[in-house]
Amino acid sequence: VLLSVCLNPAVDVTYQVASTVVPGSSHRVTQVSERAGGKGVNVARVLRQLDAPVRVLALVGGAGGQAIRTGLSAAGIEADLVEVGEPTRRTVTVVDPLDATVFNEPGPVVTGADWAALVQRFRSHLDVAKLVVLSGSLPPGVPVDAYRMLTELGQAAGIPVMVDAEGGPLELALAAKPYLVKPNLAEAQSLLGNIESFGGFGNRLGSSSPTRDEIVAAGRRIQALGARNVVISCGRDGLIAVTEDGDWHAVSAEVLTGNPTGAGDALVAALALGTVTGLPWPQRLRDGVSMSAAAVASPVAGEIDLVVRDRLEPGVRVTQLARAEELER
Amino acid sequence: VLLSVCLNPAVDVTYQVASTVVPGSSHRVTQVSERAGGKGVNVARVLRQLDAPVRVLALVGGAGGQAIRTGLSAAGIEADLVEVGEPTRRTVTVVDPLDATVFNEPGPVVTGADWAALVQRFRSHLDVAKLVVLSGSLPPGVPVDAYRMLTELGQAAGIPVMVDAEGGPLELALAAKPYLVKPNLAEAQSLLGNIESFGGFGNRLGSSSPTRDEIVAAGRRIQALGARNVVISCGRDGLIAVTEDGDWHAVSAEVLTGNPTGAGDALVAALALGTVTGLPWPQRLRDGVSMSAAAVASPVAGEIDLVVRDRLEPGVRVTQLARAEELER
Repeated sequence: VLLSVCLNPAVDVTYQVASTVVPGSSHRVTQVSERAGGKGVNVARVLRQLDAPVRVLALVGGAGGQAIRTGLSAAGIEADLVEVGEPTRRTVTVVDPLDATVFNEPGPVVTGADWAALVQRFRSHLDVAKLVVLSGSLPPGVPVDAYRMLTELGQAAGIPVMVDAEGGPLELALAAKPYLVKPNLAEAQSLLGNIESFGGFGNRLGSSSPTRDEIVAAGRRIQALGARNVVISCGRDGLIAVTEDGDWHAVSAEVLTGNPTGAGDALVAALALGTVTGLPWPQRLRDGVSMSAAAVASPVAGEIDLVVRDRLEPGVRVTQLARAEELER
Repeated sequence: VLLSVCLNPAVDVTYQVASTVVPGSSHRVTQVSERAGGKGVNVARVLRQLDAPVRVLALVGGAGGQAIRTGLSAAGIEADLVEVGEPTRRTVTVVDPLDATVFNEPGPVVTGADWAALVQRFRSHLDVAKLVVLSGSLPPGVPVDAYRMLTELGQAAGIPVMVDAEGGPLELALAAKPYLVKPNLAEAQSLLGNIESFGGFGNRLGSSSPTRDEIVAAGRRIQALGARNVVISCGRDGLIAVTEDGDWHAVSAEVLTGNPTGAGDALVAALALGTVTGLPWPQRLRDGVSMSAAAVASPVAGEIDLVVRDRLEPGVRVTQLARAEELER
């Protein structure tokens, strides 16, 4: 089974409003929809859609926690939910004719006992897990090195661990040498900017258009910090992968517009499935690009449009990049 | 007992964010607070704070309905809550360093059976009610003439009914000759603009500064449409009252800044209490102005700062306005 850990799931609430959001004024919401979400839940949804065996381990509480339980059950996703004393957070996305404006609640305060219970449940799943995905933010009270600790436990059990996080939790997780990390460009910049000036590179990376070589160099720096494989997602410019087996650039011939929320989660799901099924890197990346694009084409996060994926997949261009040391030889 | 009817109560959620709201971007919420709200609940809270006997009759549903029940109970407010099948709505107010941006959910869809149950409960309270307050929006499914119907039932039982609403529900309620309506300037403009051109007056009323005479004329038009007494709230310019006993302008010497949400509800509470205790109009208006200002000074809607009220009350200036027909004599 693929184990998706979701420490800070969310009830994702979407408000439709008829005219554009104006700060300081009142808005009449015309339609309200709610859905069990959070990155880990979205990853599990996509894996489930691909018929992969998946299990969610999450911290939940209150009415929101009940909504997560109901939502996972309705999606046919196996779940182990550890109850905490405060309610699961909500995210509110206000969709107007031009834009989506998002408000993310911080999440419940998690006690030491809650966290210990989660770790114990995590250990109990390791005897059947083929791969672990750790994704999303940490709720207040969970130690900032939570992903490092869980990565260590997973890798010690011989299970590849993938981390999709940012900031301190990602930085600290690198020390546990996770199988893969998947920052986007901004997250990679922030990570490198925090750790070192890196010859001014961290600052450049977030500018409108860092070069492909610069992104590869960033990936290699993150690899040097501990990650065995690094996939940096670059929006419509595709993916840069810096792996143990070589470096690649993968990009879709066709760029779709739509809802970008959940595109990263679909990519993580593709990479997780490709890892456990032993696909070669170029095919994993091809799947990742087409599934990200298929997530953008789907109106809700945590779902991909399989028809779109099948249409885009042959058009994904995967290019192996020569390594500097090889060029120098 | 004072009966406050709340057909569309709300769980008022407040999000604090550290920087100003930017449409199209993501915002990290630093603090979340929730409170049972909606105009009718806020009116009841203020009456309770003034030790007036008050009872809330409301339509509630789901987890939000439970939050309303808990909130009213915690405030020591007697409640008769009619359960509906869909959840009570939320309002989300995002408070940034400059502004408050509000998103109002429409509310649960109410069935004919739910509405009939509410009307039956309403009738049952009329043998003890001294006054009825009908305030706020109608949830989907409640007939647009709901306030007219409830006003007719109340007035037929000899009980004064006050209506704080806008648009169609207010317009239709006028036909039942409510004891009092309390539009603000914009609501009065909208009402008159919908009904008649009124010599171009409806259009002028909402402009930055209609004259006092123009506002009095608007009040008299609304009176002619059926309301026995009309109080128009004009923000920092105070109140214009067009009543069966004369016309007045009431304004505070001191203008406070703060949270304007709930100021109108505090005014309604003051007018309701003044009515049942038989205060002369000038004193009712004096209380209304000072309690509105004291609501602005309070950080949360549905509460007034009693110290502020006591300090401002002597400084409220109430001026009786000569009637045109008297001047002509």
